[in-house]
Amino acid sequence: MGSDRKSGMIPLIELDAVALRDRIARGELAALDVVEAYIEQIRQREPEVQAWIWHDPDFARHQAKQLDAHRKSGKPLGRLHGLPVGIKDVIDTQKIPTGNGTMLDQGRLPMADAFVVKRLKQEGAIIMGKTVTTELAYLHPSGTRNPHNPDHTPGGSSAGSAAAVAAAMVPLAIGTQTGGSIIRPASFCGVTGFKPSFGAIPRTGVLMQSQTLDTVGTFAHDPAGAAMLAEVLFGQDSADPATTLQPFPALLDTAQADPPVAPRFAMIKPPEWDRADPDLHHAFEELAEHLHHRCFPARLHSQFDKAAEQRAIINVAEMVRCYQGYAARSDGLSDTLQEALDHGQSVSAKDYLTALDWRELLTATLDEIFQQCDAMLCPAALGPAPESHATTGDAIFNGLWTLCGVPAITIPVFTASNGMPMGLQLVGPRGDDARLLRNANWLYKTLAAHE
Amino acid sequence: MGSDRKSGMIPLIELDAVALRDRIARGELAALDVVEAYIEQIRQREPEVQAWIWHDPDFARHQAKQLDAHRKSGKPLGRLHGLPVGIKDVIDTQKIPTGNGTMLDQGRLPMADAFVVKRLKQEGAIIMGKTVTTELAYLHPSGTRNPHNPDHTPGGSSAGSAAAVAAAMVPLAIGTQTGGSIIRPASFCGVTGFKPSFGAIPRTGVLMQSQTLDTVGTFAHDPAGAAMLAEVLFGQDSADPATTLQPFPALLDTAQADPPVAPRFAMIKPPEWDRADPDLHHAFEELAEHLHHRCFPARLHSQFDKAAEQRAIINVAEMVRCYQGYAARSDGLSDTLQEALDHGQSVSAKDYLTALDWRELLTATLDEIFQQCDAMLCPAALGPAPESHATTGDAIFNGLWTLCGVPAITIPVFTASNGMPMGLQLVGPRGDDARLLRNANWLYKTLAAHE
Repeated sequence: MGSDRKSGMIPLIELDAVALRDRIARGELAALDVVEAYIEQIRQREPEVQAWIWHDPDFARHQAKQLDAHRKSGKPLGRLHGLPVGIKDVIDTQKIPTGNGTMLDQGRLPMADAFVVKRLKQEGAIIMGKTVTTELAYLHPSGTRNPHNPDHTPGGSSAGSAAAVAAAMVPLAIGTQTGGSIIRPASFCGVTGFKPSFGAIPRTGVLMQSQTLDTVGTFAHDPAGAAMLAEVLFGQDSADPATTLQPFPALLDTAQADPPVAPRFAMIKPPEWDRADPDLHHAFEELAEHLHHRCFPARLHSQFDKAAEQRAIINVAEMVRCYQGYAARSDGLSDTLQEALDHGQSVSAKDYLTALDWRELLTATLDEIFQQCDAMLCPAALGPAPESHATTGDAIFNGLWTLCGVPAITIPVFTASNGMPMGLQLVGPRGDDARLLRNANWLYKTLAAHE
Repeated sequence: MGSDRKSGMIPLIELDAVALRDRIARGELAALDVVEAYIEQIRQREPEVQAWIWHDPDFARHQAKQLDAHRKSGKPLGRLHGLPVGIKDVIDTQKIPTGNGTMLDQGRLPMADAFVVKRLKQEGAIIMGKTVTTELAYLHPSGTRNPHNPDHTPGGSSAGSAAAVAAAMVPLAIGTQTGGSIIRPASFCGVTGFKPSFGAIPRTGVLMQSQTLDTVGTFAHDPAGAAMLAEVLFGQDSADPATTLQPFPALLDTAQADPPVAPRFAMIKPPEWDRADPDLHHAFEELAEHLHHRCFPARLHSQFDKAAEQRAIINVAEMVRCYQGYAARSDGLSDTLQEALDHGQSVSAKDYLTALDWRELLTATLDEIFQQCDAMLCPAALGPAPESHATTGDAIFNGLWTLCGVPAITIPVFTASNGMPMGLQLVGPRGDDARLLRNANWLYKTLAAHE
């Protein structure tokens, strides 16, 4: 696909999101043509992949026609003008069903758009539909299949968003991560997934599972696409106290800029590294050789051994608070979720507050590493997507970064011996999202050129 | 004392803090003269009142001489130039013992000043000494006596700050409130106590008992003095996440300004009103008659019946986290504190998070009342200071406002039949501190003119 893209003769749906945006903006493509191409792709791939819980081709066409008319009127274009976007079904969409992946919310019609959906509409994006989420964005698997091989899990909880982008059913999608729900499915499905710094994107109108951990993020084929979408979603909203007033982040321009000097990476073996797939170990050895002096091994503080446990304590304790309405109707919940709620009920305030302190302590220990590198490199998952639909895979290499609130991105640069994709995760200092995207884009292009 | 103040012949230590500040600023009084007058007053009253845990007359004189030299050099003066201030002994002072009211911290010498102490020094205040706090700013009584009658409690936990101002040993003092530790002692001692909106004054360098409730505030004879001191303490500090970047609040100018129209007050009977002293009930009846159409009765939402319980849950749960170092040496703690820690250990994360939600819910219900009035009026305590040293009194009329994070101020306008003072508490919308101070100042002057 990489060489096709350079030929100029490639199908519309294989264009990078930024190239597609630019061609629409220049008037070389009509929004309606774009949306028809993706509707056709959904028609072809959706029966197998099952990435969508709600998709209405006519509603997509209607938006495209309005956008084309807007264009012809000579009015200024939004930054996502004509780009179809998939929206994880835990994100409220006005008058469009938002079911949160549970039968308990079947047919639920939000009165208002989530903050991020308002932003999409302001910027001329096309709401292509709602993508499948696991039950209440937790671990119980969804019906979505991995586009690379339907016998494998697409990961979770943003299963549909990752799979829809991977199957080229949409160039961009939005997801959320409380443990590893963006990075893991992106890695399993072979796309880029970007989990920004905690608090960067307002969560107003998004199902809340854990106020301390929930993070909204983006999916695209490449880091530039993920940056372009994230840029319009970053902001402040008084209804989400995690957000703060920040200067406008030029994520896309920064991501596409050349670094002043080639970046230097710290390669991390996170806790449970030994459990990873031999293919993954091998890929990291090759990567280290390839990057040579641009890469050095670094060790996380030993306290990170407790990160997974502390993150889980916060997650389940806050889940009890957030999901009390669902818990009251527990015969509609999976055993997996019920067990998490039971665990949450048993957590003491002391252990919860201690876990919140761990979050600060662990994040502080990263300063020393970030003083020596531009970003950390580590696996995005234990290996390729498991050949199973009884699990969404293990988030062990994701939760620690969600806990710390640092930005993380996975880029699809590895392939396992069974042909399935594996992601490479880059992690940056909190608040330094633009620079992380630039380094990810640099590495993505460097490794592509090497292939 | 009221009529003396107007004569111009009154002793220096009976000047209002703002008048004193203005006379020093105009060069009519030297900082050294001011400090000598207060040192003499401390010499006379301290043996009975015991408001100070640390006071060094020579250190105070040394600062005063430096300030007088600064003045003579023609450099601009700080906003508190030459004013002696008492600092509650849970607030860190560089190289000055800060014992937090517990034998476990005896002789502790902080390396750095708290944020508020830095501000005091920047503005030319004189660090007069450290005022007595109850053990770790909780309920176990201190040795301080009520200046109006040594058989009565001065209240707590900011016992020394309230008593020092009441005994005219210092014109201004700083305290903290987690339940009712500013308003209650101010009421019992017959001075003004101001608890600003949560997050208004950075707590960096202040003993943390409860990150959700701890609030720094000020003591003075009158609302203008409390506003003048608070104005230099308001701010943002990255080390205290409760603070936010705010425009500079002109608290003193606003407090002293005439309201555009005479304010209208909602008179509140908070939960447990029936437990209050008959003298207090009587005082409120008289006040309502006096204010007439400027005052109307209003009811708190019935959910406020749970406010005290929810506040206590947050307080003890966070105390376990904050005081774990002290808890490890528990033979040095009072039974009162040990019981609170035991209670805190038993709180579940679910109940703690539910209590945090109550805080938001209760605060939201106040909107309806604030739409109809400029401030709420309610008692500052159940009645005058109890004749006891086994208790610091009941904070039942304070904790609900601390929980909601709304600004509260008590002004010394009532006298019980036994001659002891009683405070009148005014409460305003969160973030609207300046207007609350203006209304308090208006009412203070109105009631004084009526006497």
